[in-house]
Amino acid sequence: MTTPRTAEPSAPPGRRDARTTRAEILRAARYLLARHAHADITLKAVADRAGVSPPLILKYFGNKDTLFSQVMSFEADVGALLDAPLAELGRHMVRHLLLGQTERGADPLLRIVFAPLQGEQGDILRANFRSQVVDRLAARLTGPDAGLRAELSVGTLLGLGVIYGIARGAHVRATEVEEIVDRYAPAVQAQLGEG
Amino acid sequence: MTTPRTAEPSAPPGRRDARTTRAEILRAARYLLARHAHADITLKAVADRAGVSPPLILKYFGNKDTLFSQVMSFEADVGALLDAPLAELGRHMVRHLLLGQTERGADPLLRIVFAPLQGEQGDILRANFRSQVVDRLAARLTGPDAGLRAELSVGTLLGLGVIYGIARGAHVRATEVEEIVDRYAPAVQAQLGEG
Repeated sequence: MTTPRTAEPSAPPGRRDARTTRAEILRAARYLLARHAHADITLKAVADRAGVSPPLILKYFGNKDTLFSQVMSFEADVGALLDAPLAELGRHMVRHLLLGQTERGADPLLRIVFAPLQGEQGDILRANFRSQVVDRLAARLTGPDAGLRAELSVGTLLGLGVIYGIARGAHVRATEVEEIVDRYAPAVQAQLGEG
Repeated sequence: MTTPRTAEPSAPPGRRDARTTRAEILRAARYLLARHAHADITLKAVADRAGVSPPLILKYFGNKDTLFSQVMSFEADVGALLDAPLAELGRHMVRHLLLGQTERGADPLLRIVFAPLQGEQGDILRANFRSQVVDRLAARLTGPDAGLRAELSVGTLLGLGVIYGIARGAHVRATEVEEIVDRYAPAVQAQLGEG
């Protein structure tokens, strides 16, 4: 209860290491979840990939389900995705997705495309996607059919992620980010309104 | 060499059964490939799902690789997807994808989103997607940057498939097909030109 939640450059080494380790465990679980069905992923596989012991994962996350419920969350990513005024949001979302692809080789939003492979956990992923991404965007829109328009704009964005990061389109990958923003953002913004 | 390739309503029962069985084997392989990595799928698993014996699969397809090379092809699907004049192609593609979702619960084009899970076979899937879908569409476009515009229009379409069929957006699934066509097709057509 006394641990501050803000970033602390001067945090003691022990606490900073714990944060790094947690992040590494989450990254390992996320990596495996993008490639295997949830039921097939063992704690040991996550531990091996993160370079820690299975008991350490249990210490930080309690059990496999609580670990994966964090991996299934979009909460940590959606703030940055939606961080722009509504009139500029289409351009911001397209640029944000493309920079994720070019700088980190992936975008957290794209995890939703693997939902069919995750069994019951796929339903959690879909429910989180709806409440944490679509509903949050819809709440910012004015005018009728905000929910539908939020889904269609996020869908348009996901399509760019698929053609860039999954189908790996040669033309789109050879094009400057800002040119793709110019070409693609109007379609996203048209659903958001205030174009 | 003497087997005609056209459909024959009057084909003898034996040949018609062979066609049905081939289709069932392909359907089983496609189903499994949308849920498991290629390396993890055994011929026996395909045979069990199709209700045939593994040797029968070998008789029809030679080996597992030739079977999966057919499963990885978009050739059989792209003709119907692109079967419209250029000026109406955006609406046609959106309607085609939505009817696939509402009538058959899936669209063959969406197989591309599982490419990351398929290892080397994923590269085949990507190469087929490029040559059989993107390049074929690009060849019909006029004006500059046809390849880039083909990728962006197909990407837009895939995004609708993801939000409808994978994220299972509640709003989009509660909306009439023709209303989604009205709202979404302009974004696809804008990339194709001749809007």
